[in-house]
Amino acid sequence: MEYQHGGDIYTNRVTMDYSANINPMGLPPGVRKALLQAVESCSCYPDSRCQKLRKALSLFHEVSEKHIICGNGAADLIFQIVHAIRPGRALLIAPSFLEYEQALKTVSADILWYDLKEADGFTLSVHQLIEWLKSKDQRVEMLFLCNPNNPTGFALGKEEMKTLLDFSKTMGIYCVIDECFNEFLDDPEDYSVLELISQGGYEHVFVLKAFTKIYAMAGLRLGYGITTGEEMLEKMNCIRQPWSISSLAQAAGEAAIKETEYVNETRKLIAAEREYLKRNLTELGFKVYDSKANYLFFKDLRENALSGEMLLYKELLEQQVLIRSCSNYRGLNGTHYRICVKQRRENDAFLTVLKSILIEGE
Amino acid sequence: MEYQHGGDIYTNRVTMDYSANINPMGLPPGVRKALLQAVESCSCYPDSRCQKLRKALSLFHEVSEKHIICGNGAADLIFQIVHAIRPGRALLIAPSFLEYEQALKTVSADILWYDLKEADGFTLSVHQLIEWLKSKDQRVEMLFLCNPNNPTGFALGKEEMKTLLDFSKTMGIYCVIDECFNEFLDDPEDYSVLELISQGGYEHVFVLKAFTKIYAMAGLRLGYGITTGEEMLEKMNCIRQPWSISSLAQAAGEAAIKETEYVNETRKLIAAEREYLKRNLTELGFKVYDSKANYLFFKDLRENALSGEMLLYKELLEQQVLIRSCSNYRGLNGTHYRICVKQRRENDAFLTVLKSILIEGE
Repeated sequence: MEYQHGGDIYTNRVTMDYSANINPMGLPPGVRKALLQAVESCSCYPDSRCQKLRKALSLFHEVSEKHIICGNGAADLIFQIVHAIRPGRALLIAPSFLEYEQALKTVSADILWYDLKEADGFTLSVHQLIEWLKSKDQRVEMLFLCNPNNPTGFALGKEEMKTLLDFSKTMGIYCVIDECFNEFLDDPEDYSVLELISQGGYEHVFVLKAFTKIYAMAGLRLGYGITTGEEMLEKMNCIRQPWSISSLAQAAGEAAIKETEYVNETRKLIAAEREYLKRNLTELGFKVYDSKANYLFFKDLRENALSGEMLLYKELLEQQVLIRSCSNYRGLNGTHYRICVKQRRENDAFLTVLKSILIEGE
Repeated sequence: MEYQHGGDIYTNRVTMDYSANINPMGLPPGVRKALLQAVESCSCYPDSRCQKLRKALSLFHEVSEKHIICGNGAADLIFQIVHAIRPGRALLIAPSFLEYEQALKTVSADILWYDLKEADGFTLSVHQLIEWLKSKDQRVEMLFLCNPNNPTGFALGKEEMKTLLDFSKTMGIYCVIDECFNEFLDDPEDYSVLELISQGGYEHVFVLKAFTKIYAMAGLRLGYGITTGEEMLEKMNCIRQPWSISSLAQAAGEAAIKETEYVNETRKLIAAEREYLKRNLTELGFKVYDSKANYLFFKDLRENALSGEMLLYKELLEQQVLIRSCSNYRGLNGTHYRICVKQRRENDAFLTVLKSILIEGE
């Protein structure tokens, strides 16, 4: 397996990692404390059912515990749900998170691609998507939608999402809505379908959430899913190994959801720094797309931006700065990049390196 | 999913857990130290390829790094290998570790059961197994063998194992040899097939190992597999999610394999205490089978041992002592139990509770 994700600080020599979309505020102190405590009892098997964590999540999201399933990172649940459904054909939006395709390949599912257009700024119109689907006579059994989308940062409002979920219901399409970056949005509730599905009638919808990004605990592996479709949860519980979530991750998760102030501060920080980075990148001549998340998607408009020597990715890596080249996303190429949003001091240091490269290249 | 494994201290009120086969010496100090350090950098994504850990394991076992795959506990790898092979039919020995069947069910594999006999003390003769397989005209594509076996503790020597692996090769049977408890044996090398397969010619064999038990880190989830069959590793790497092993587990694993003295002491402790417990259980009237591992398998011979009131499991649980009832293993019933071997003081406390129950019941 070739490593083609963000955050690969193991193969590359990196002093500044802008490739992984992790909360720049770092591990919340409460989570750190919980982890240090949990180390003392890590000889015991973890609770296979994550009872305490699911209870805490249930109170946090105001959904029933029995509608929550935890996973060894959100990626674990993506693979599980694909194995539970084993669709003959699934709809994917391009570009989007690579793991959906990866997981679908493992069950030999056909993929129906809906390609977003560069001319539209890679935005998605649910109306157009539905018209397009109607015009196809190919049936899809499931779809994945990342909202806000990774790597573009574009987010669909909950009214549009409702339209898509209602349409999917009539068409018998199972929907996995990946809200792993929802918490970074300025107004998360305006984009989440959680409230909608928790009222019932949306048993065909699975909402994916992660601790990894918003609580800066990517090394720990902890994600969860919420659905009122209990049959699906039963299936998933049957095909997963019993102890998939470590006791440390469970302890960290329980502590994390108490960190309300940390999340509020994060949102303020991200909103301000995203605009700051966006403005600076634009001034430097990049085309920056309209991200609402904690990362920015941009295009290198320089002539020869695709040539080996001028490849921004390589130029930055020579300075030990890692960004996410989006060349392995369908519909994108080596001129498309994604960077995360960090704190001001880090962002300034990043911009300084970036500027030096651009000046040298002139 | 009903919880039917050892170590469920979350549903039951337990002060003494004899149900989970974990090293009674507890987390090695070096591992604890490594974990506390690793907490400080757990905001980063783990290394998807576990490069440092695999390097360390490669030196430890004298096998090539490229023949090692790590998993989120050994159970993770059991599910992965079953998904990679998707056998139509697989051979399982009964009784044995439950996850093999669980994993095979997820791909709708038929299971050909080879039932060990109580009259033979649940021992396995490879010669008889091969004769039996020859007499069947049902083809199996894979087999699982747990050595030493869980829950019985019976272990096959490496000569017998070689006979089985050679036969399997001629029959085209893929072999998963689960050596997760091998390190607890008095002479581990006399039972392991690792040296044999590392010489080549056994590409159809996958050896499963775990950190969980021998290093008392069950809460962390870390197992690994070794095979010279590179095609299988490639397949497994394709179907797994990229970040299945947490950075904490990787750090703990790297520290653990340096703990040579800890493992030597463990072996001495287990050898002595296993005999001590065995003698005492026998004196108390239980039939104790010949385990070579860090757990004992025994039968409650009391009249009415199966009646609700006399169920040893329940009687002990009333005293907050948890043992592993083997009633959900094929071929066993509520009179069969498994307990782990702990340190003398704990074992004495356990025996005291056990005696009090037996005296009361007289």
